Amino acid sequence: MSTWRDDLTQETIKRERANPPFDVRKMSIEHHGSEKDLVKKEKFMLEASRDPVFYSVDIYDLTKDQIRERTMQRIQRLAHYVTSESVDDFQKRMELMSLLDPGLWTRLGVHYGLFLGAIRSGATPNQFSYWMEKGVIGCKGMFGCFGMTELAHGSNVAGLETTAIFDEQTDEFVIHTPNLGATKWWIGGAAQTATHCSVFAQLIVKGKRYGTKTFIVPLRDPATFALLPGINIGDIGKKMGRDGIDNGYIQFTNVRIPRAYMLMKHTQVTREGEVREPPLQQLTYGALLQGRTAMVTDAANTAKKALTISVRYAAVRRQFKSDAKAEFETQILDYPIHQRRLMPLVAQAVAFGYTALELQRLFEETSQALEALEPGDPNLDATIEKLKETHSTSAGLKAFCTWATLETIEKSRQACGGHGYSSYNGFANMYADFAVHCTWEGENGVLALQAGRFLIQAYQDALNGKDLSSGTKYLNKLDTVLKAKCPSNDALDTLEGIEAGWDTVAAHAVKKAYEEFQACLKAGRSREQAFEDCSQVRFVAASVHTSGYIFRQFRSAVERIERSDDGVREHLELLAKFYGLWQMEEKAAFFLRSGWLSADGLDFASAKVTEYCAKTRSFAIPLIDSFAISDHILNSPIGRHDGDIYREYFRMVRRNNPQLKEHPYFERLIRPFIERPNPELEDFDEAIGIDDEIEEIKQDREEAEAEAKAAAEEAKANK
Amino acid sequence: MSTWRDDLTQETIKRERANPPFDVRKMSIEHHGSEKDLVKKEKFMLEASRDPVFYSVDIYDLTKDQIRERTMQRIQRLAHYVTSESVDDFQKRMELMSLLDPGLWTRLGVHYGLFLGAIRSGATPNQFSYWMEKGVIGCKGMFGCFGMTELAHGSNVAGLETTAIFDEQTDEFVIHTPNLGATKWWIGGAAQTATHCSVFAQLIVKGKRYGTKTFIVPLRDPATFALLPGINIGDIGKKMGRDGIDNGYIQFTNVRIPRAYMLMKHTQVTREGEVREPPLQQLTYGALLQGRTAMVTDAANTAKKALTISVRYAAVRRQFKSDAKAEFETQILDYPIHQRRLMPLVAQAVAFGYTALELQRLFEETSQALEALEPGDPNLDATIEKLKETHSTSAGLKAFCTWATLETIEKSRQACGGHGYSSYNGFANMYADFAVHCTWEGENGVLALQAGRFLIQAYQDALNGKDLSSGTKYLNKLDTVLKAKCPSNDALDTLEGIEAGWDTVAAHAVKKAYEEFQACLKAGRSREQAFEDCSQVRFVAASVHTSGYIFRQFRSAVERIERSDDGVREHLELLAKFYGLWQMEEKAAFFLRSGWLSADGLDFASAKVTEYCAKTRSFAIPLIDSFAISDHILNSPIGRHDGDIYREYFRMVRRNNPQLKEHPYFERLIRPFIERPNPELEDFDEAIGIDDEIEEIKQDREEAEAEAKAAAEEAKANK
Repeated sequence: MSTWRDDLTQETIKRERANPPFDVRKMSIEHHGSEKDLVKKEKFMLEASRDPVFYSVDIYDLTKDQIRERTMQRIQRLAHYVTSESVDDFQKRMELMSLLDPGLWTRLGVHYGLFLGAIRSGATPNQFSYWMEKGVIGCKGMFGCFGMTELAHGSNVAGLETTAIFDEQTDEFVIHTPNLGATKWWIGGAAQTATHCSVFAQLIVKGKRYGTKTFIVPLRDPATFALLPGINIGDIGKKMGRDGIDNGYIQFTNVRIPRAYMLMKHTQVTREGEVREPPLQQLTYGALLQGRTAMVTDAANTAKKALTISVRYAAVRRQFKSDAKAEFETQILDYPIHQRRLMPLVAQAVAFGYTALELQRLFEETSQALEALEPGDPNLDATIEKLKETHSTSAGLKAFCTWATLETIEKSRQACGGHGYSSYNGFANMYADFAVHCTWEGENGVLALQAGRFLIQAYQDALNGKDLSSGTKYLNKLDTVLKAKCPSNDALDTLEGIEAGWDTVAAHAVKKAYEEFQACLKAGRSREQAFEDCSQVRFVAASVHTSGYIFRQFRSAVERIERSDDGVREHLELLAKFYGLWQMEEKAAFFLRSGWLSADGLDFASAKVTEYCAKTRSFAIPLIDSFAISDHILNSPIGRHDGDIYREYFRMVRRNNPQLKEHPYFERLIRPFIERPNPELEDFDEAIGIDDEIEEIKQDREEAEAEAKAAAEEAKANK
Repeated sequence: MSTWRDDLTQETIKRERANPPFDVRKMSIEHHGSEKDLVKKEKFMLEASRDPVFYSVDIYDLTKDQIRERTMQRIQRLAHYVTSESVDDFQKRMELMSLLDPGLWTRLGVHYGLFLGAIRSGATPNQFSYWMEKGVIGCKGMFGCFGMTELAHGSNVAGLETTAIFDEQTDEFVIHTPNLGATKWWIGGAAQTATHCSVFAQLIVKGKRYGTKTFIVPLRDPATFALLPGINIGDIGKKMGRDGIDNGYIQFTNVRIPRAYMLMKHTQVTREGEVREPPLQQLTYGALLQGRTAMVTDAANTAKKALTISVRYAAVRRQFKSDAKAEFETQILDYPIHQRRLMPLVAQAVAFGYTALELQRLFEETSQALEALEPGDPNLDATIEKLKETHSTSAGLKAFCTWATLETIEKSRQACGGHGYSSYNGFANMYADFAVHCTWEGENGVLALQAGRFLIQAYQDALNGKDLSSGTKYLNKLDTVLKAKCPSNDALDTLEGIEAGWDTVAAHAVKKAYEEFQACLKAGRSREQAFEDCSQVRFVAASVHTSGYIFRQFRSAVERIERSDDGVREHLELLAKFYGLWQMEEKAAFFLRSGWLSADGLDFASAKVTEYCAKTRSFAIPLIDSFAISDHILNSPIGRHDGDIYREYFRMVRRNNPQLKEHPYFERLIRPFIERPNPELEDFDEAIGIDDEIEEIKQDREEAEAEAKAAAEEAKANK
């Protein structure tokens, strides 16, 4: 009767791979943008998997202190690559590192992304050379951290309270933490790694405040790592995740730095204390864009990682027999409800992947346009407008994609039942590490509202007859789009038909936000108040718009693929429709509310989603394989490529939890407990409470049994 | 310009408490069911907060091994109470322990709830006495664990593969693990605590299988804690949360136990190997009910704990000024979007609280009815029917309440921004600990489908003219209820009106599930297959039904409160309407789809929800206070009652992360890194990659600056 066979899981997954309906390699190239990039990533994954520094089987049992140290070893290793390979290669490598070890990604990112980024965007050419010569590129003689957030200020950067007062006498700035709330907080790398910090502080010259500027402040003597005078740094300790990064707090007490340590590309302070404000408003959008773009990419990759584990597990895990005559129990992936749990998330992860590629392209394009800008450039307005849209798009995508991926991780974990709760299968750390994406680099709620604010403005522009481009193009023909209805159920099974639905529904959501905003203005609220008052509808507008935006990216990526008989385009088209319809079902109220979809149309869409779940299930394993995430990066026995899940899981648990010769606290705690002398035993019988109750139960039971016995005998006698 | 004042947060929260619109004490009594229970819980909270064993400030930094040992100390302490106070008192105490230390609750629960529970429900009176005399009540000489799940079997208990073969020669059972997949897995208490295990195994007598029965198997010698012959136990190590409980694996290799160690209340095996099957189907529902009831209570309590922290933080945290002239920045709780994030969850937590009280009452009632049952009882059918309904109701509630609370924890964390990510503020552990509630004691997905299956049956009964009671009463007048429409927007602001909506929408959802099920049957699918095929609509039916059920519990609790001028009933009524309307908005598609709500009605409901968010905000702090969760249990500086969040958070971080005299790995890792000899430095200029790029950027910058300078000079000249 046992259905156990040692190799059943491997055989099962082999069978799942037997006849993929598409060319798996070509599908993989599609996900990764190009064959070149795929090959590159495979090379990096191989390197990492063989490098002892990246050994990860023991990682789930390390303490915070051990992980910190392990991460430092890995940083050393990566520093080798940062100076020896191209920026593009290194970014690809880091994209994988983020999947393998998010704390490492952050710890290195603090130096290269934030600290060096602050210098690149804020330093004059001379200042830039100075820090280069100091060794900032290769982390030679210095390691940077990024001193923005304070204990009492996060989102409101303009409200930071650390001060930088210019001392004309000595030609220095005095950096100072005026109160506890102004303590720099969450500063990654501060606790154990950094020698320097790019400090955001209020520039004060001759008693006048000029707002928040950036100052490079030395923290430690690189030769001894002793704190410099006036610097107080502490570890802020245990976090939900990413313990590899050493976040700390910093308090400055009258710390003096040379005037030249203020980054002066934009605002300048002269020897005499003259402050020159920049001619152009600071274009800091660029720096924000980079972080958000990286996070959308990370959301797509992490969702694929989580789903690789949960879908492979679902394919080889068996539970219950639907048919008593079946040889084995049913693969849980064959249950329609399990398909409903996971398959839409797979389509979504693929959609996010294309959206991330598109956002990367947009980011490159915008960065180049920005670099090319010169004062008085005739393209200035157009470029800034484009930048604003890209900025708002990336804000919405960062918020909704990271939220959705966090949910994907949790749903994947739950879909693996109890084994999903074991740290060794990876979800616990993945969730805890990923969760911070919803909070940093722009809190998701705040970002979603920024995206909504842009949409209200776009609606106003559309009403004014302005021709909108790219992301909000659907607002151009408002009369038509607002009145549109789904022509037939057949339309719901085409990419055009689904896109038309998203156009109409997004237009309605934006219209509602716009109108509520206008009503608030008319009621006498200030512009800022009006934006706050309509924040809920603004949020909804951003949410609906972003789903439509992602669908459009997916659709246009699919339509760029050449038709061929390798099955790739065909199956991606299926996934695109699946994503569009599933999101339609998820946000069905807006579709019904707008009149675009009828009740019958909704039922049709729901039935289609169920159908696509089953279809996607049929090629789920080849599809997951095409995500091309190595076993080393997965680091999850139940998600293994070869399907040998139980033996490997058991081995990993045993490897990390060797059986002890001696019980750690038997003599100290357990023996005195179970052998404890028994003062209560004396009055055991009189003890109030549970014992009485037990006695009662016993009596009741005995009586009941006696009666039952009597009744049975009576019945016997009566026969 | 600084807005910092050391006591601003305390003053702010004091002001929030100044004029509560209801009697806070009476509100608190309402939440806790009675004044007696509230006072009792306050007493227990005080005791825990002063007991050094329950000191918790250092808890977030303990390693797994340290937490295990700490938990054992706490178990010793609780063993004192278990034998000295009433069951009801001890359960209340444990309810609080679960909030303070979920791993402890589980570790003790494994013995008292599961192991002892198995004995109570499965032992004959003599067997019961035997184990009592052995010391099971006071954990004297023994500590139990519960050996149900196996590596390859969780949900499918009937499919477990551990065998118990009766040896007639020796009058013993031979307990055996036939293969790796049958290894007992996840067994709480097995790794370090248990001496005995209640093992679920396939009973085999004379070669015939009789299904899964329970056997008490000794694991360790209580005097030395050495494993007994044939027992192999290992630690399964690190989990997402609840590291205080020592889950392990157990493999049995031909372990012999006396025949009497099989629990024989239901099935009996005689000396001769005769198997007597029970006359009644085993009524094991009761045991499941207890766990689920406790989990619904825990869901309500944990949601209140998370919200106590996030709402208090939102009241004292300030960020941005909406009005430049304002003295201080705005409390984030004053932002409408922040109210939208948290206030509906508060209403939901209160609703869950009343639902949990009702479920406890139902559980008591059902248990008593079960205890009173006797063979041939004329009430048997009615009782079993009632039990089935309670069982299905508790399944749905367990699933949807634990899901919602997990979301509440995560949303609360995110609402606290960066500080929510610090372990010291409690959300990280709370999430990780709570998450397992969605998986154990019936996987949520599976439970939701069980609830849906019951609803399909109920619909069939209603069509057959049967008069349904309690939870599914709304199906009695199907013709009327299915056709009903919301009479006017005014109705949406009454408890009756909202309940009518839930009746209609739930009826439609159940109808849809029923009809799809019937269609599957007609298409020739077996009953089981048909249930699988319609699982998505079955799931939806359970989800909609459960929201309506919770609303009804809340409503009837409110309507039981006497009218008075203490404001309690009035504000609870407000919260009940709020919950009902917010859930309506969340599940709006079903309301529109059913025709009960018009597009305009939905807009009205949404506007009402926003209005109730603002209203609830106005008394949010007194309401949160009335949950009466002590600072000790919260163990979260940003959630403190006195509002002194920043100083206490800073103190806690410093206390747990003392500044080290020496850097832990400076000499070992950092010095060699930042001072590393520089082979690359030689060819620094030729290095491909980033250095080239930097050179280019430098040149571009210099050119651009030169041009800009020239242009500026030209412009000057032209003036």
